Amino acid sequence: MSQQNIGITAAKGFKATGVACGLKKNNALDLALLVSDDDCACAGVFTTNRVQAAPVQFDKQVLAKNSGALRAVVANSGCANACTGDAGLADTRATADEVAKQVGCRAEQVLVLSTGVIGVRLDVEKVRGGIALAAKTLSYDGGDDASKAIMTTDTRQKQFTIHNSQFAIGGMAKGAGMIHPNMATLLSVITTDAKISPALLDQALRAAVAKSFNRVSVEGDMSTNDTLLVLANGASGYEIKEKEIEGFTKALTQVATALAKQVARDGEGATKFIEIVVSGAPDEADAARVAKSIANSPLCKTAIYGADANWGRVVCAAGYAGVDVLPEKMSLWFGEVNVFKNGTPTQYDDADATAAIAGAEVFIRLDLGMGNATTTVWTCDLSHDYITINGKYRT
Amino acid sequence: MSQQNIGITAAKGFKATGVACGLKKNNALDLALLVSDDDCACAGVFTTNRVQAAPVQFDKQVLAKNSGALRAVVANSGCANACTGDAGLADTRATADEVAKQVGCRAEQVLVLSTGVIGVRLDVEKVRGGIALAAKTLSYDGGDDASKAIMTTDTRQKQFTIHNSQFAIGGMAKGAGMIHPNMATLLSVITTDAKISPALLDQALRAAVAKSFNRVSVEGDMSTNDTLLVLANGASGYEIKEKEIEGFTKALTQVATALAKQVARDGEGATKFIEIVVSGAPDEADAARVAKSIANSPLCKTAIYGADANWGRVVCAAGYAGVDVLPEKMSLWFGEVNVFKNGTPTQYDDADATAAIAGAEVFIRLDLGMGNATTTVWTCDLSHDYITINGKYRT
Repeated sequence: MSQQNIGITAAKGFKATGVACGLKKNNALDLALLVSDDDCACAGVFTTNRVQAAPVQFDKQVLAKNSGALRAVVANSGCANACTGDAGLADTRATADEVAKQVGCRAEQVLVLSTGVIGVRLDVEKVRGGIALAAKTLSYDGGDDASKAIMTTDTRQKQFTIHNSQFAIGGMAKGAGMIHPNMATLLSVITTDAKISPALLDQALRAAVAKSFNRVSVEGDMSTNDTLLVLANGASGYEIKEKEIEGFTKALTQVATALAKQVARDGEGATKFIEIVVSGAPDEADAARVAKSIANSPLCKTAIYGADANWGRVVCAAGYAGVDVLPEKMSLWFGEVNVFKNGTPTQYDDADATAAIAGAEVFIRLDLGMGNATTTVWTCDLSHDYITINGKYRT
Repeated sequence: MSQQNIGITAAKGFKATGVACGLKKNNALDLALLVSDDDCACAGVFTTNRVQAAPVQFDKQVLAKNSGALRAVVANSGCANACTGDAGLADTRATADEVAKQVGCRAEQVLVLSTGVIGVRLDVEKVRGGIALAAKTLSYDGGDDASKAIMTTDTRQKQFTIHNSQFAIGGMAKGAGMIHPNMATLLSVITTDAKISPALLDQALRAAVAKSFNRVSVEGDMSTNDTLLVLANGASGYEIKEKEIEGFTKALTQVATALAKQVARDGEGATKFIEIVVSGAPDEADAARVAKSIANSPLCKTAIYGADANWGRVVCAAGYAGVDVLPEKMSLWFGEVNVFKNGTPTQYDDADATAAIAGAEVFIRLDLGMGNATTTVWTCDLSHDYITINGKYRT
């Protein structure tokens, strides 16, 4: 295996590439193509935003009819093809048609992803040119270029790979803003050479997403384009049946978690990666509600950005999470520093609390004192650069 | 009526003052005292955050027992007295005791408000000193100083007054961050010299709040200390009974709305005031849900800050509001510029859309095309200064 053979071409029998077709400025890579040598089982999860981009609508229809025989995924950055009406849907169909023509499969075997500005028509002529070029440059170690071609405000590509003796799973993802997945995610494609039925793959994917992509947030804005696809082509010859599903799900969760954490770490303008653990919750859903409330609080995120150990904001955010928390049972740690215990401030040293959040990795734990459930959420701080990036996104 | 006689001393029979007691630095005003010549009917609404500051817990108990005979309100800035446990509650009680002693009433006739840093004990000795000083400087035109003494990161005081031939209503409020009221608000005190029962006053207050303070947001963080009090001492001799309640509620709503809009306009770091009208909703609650989702979207707020007419973010935020909106029925205006109509972008000129959001007052209207309900929400943009202010709030 070559050095580059990670991400979506880590598994056997997948070719990929990333090319520039002119949707982004400065000849940046903006079109990724993934093609499997054989038909794939495929599962997907999508944004629950009521405003869904054309490619999301298209992919859901394709998967509903044809989840057992997929062949290709094409992804463009630079244009989300969202809020574009029927014309936008026709543009997505034209994109799939061109892929089918260039790689030699049927259009209903192609999935389409788009990311970028909302409310702008996709330039299909540029996309067609990109697909023709991509079809010529597909290779078994092209995953790396593909992961670059889906980036928008990401500062680095996001890939992760697991190999075991039976099969490989590898994936790519992009962030970096409008990140608040809910039974879905940003854009991510994961491939495996395990053999698995679409139904089992779907089951494994939903379990993996619940503990990975649905546990990250950048700023709480849920996108119109969130899509996570997993494709399994069976090229390893190793088959996942009911009794192997637990191990497969665990591996898939590991890949998805690693990608999700990379997304949080590279959130728009991020200077710090923040891990929030909520323990002592009545159940995991409540733990997640509280953790996400903290993760999405602009006041918590700016305090951490400024290394101001203003922990009252964390307790406050827990208080409005919609969970019946009791302040007198709550205890809070910044790193190892216990700042709040059973409803009252401890005699901690402010310098210690400040030091605990001063670095590039911040760990916060809130115990609710109400039960045994724990969950972890990953996010980033809210910085001046976030404002700069999003105050002039289109320019 | 003197020039200063606005705000909480606009109504007859109310004295107030603002003094410095050392909770804030640089001898800034940090303690406000309001005293009525006679017993007042009083109604209040409070934060629905599960973590409630000591003064919120205290005031709810007082109002439950004694809403017909209130005499005084004391408010401090510089310390929220939240997350301070039983000791914090004792500090609030000591504050009320001192007011009772100094102004000559019973402790159960006193309400307490606090705002400032969470998780820090209130310095009761400083507060006692401030109350003694305040009791000596109370005056019938002291509302102006009181409104200054409750400010935290506010850049200006917030007051509004209505006089009619029968009675007066005047109020003060403070912002400027952690603003996302829900059946409650920030800190605000409104007084009137109308005579009204506690029950009718409560009814009028809840109706007024629904259309005013519950329609503003700065960043979506709901505070531990939100409190709005209205006191009616009857000094005008004009009595509000069932048949006058509509007019009184209208006047109260006018005062509350003016104060709420001042809070949005002076949100932390705000450079623009934003009015969001959502029309064509199935009902007002759905309209408010969509409008607040837009008002709280960091991406919408930063785009407006940067005068980037990235309207897709507004449609996106409507899509995740938890309302079954249909993009194909939605139409959107930036000022007078219709950028999106029935699910597709219009042929608008980008320069016009940019101009529409470039000024200090931004008007956005989203029609959902689903019904006849309309609501309005007020907010501000999200700027570099918000990050600066909240990255070092305690220092």
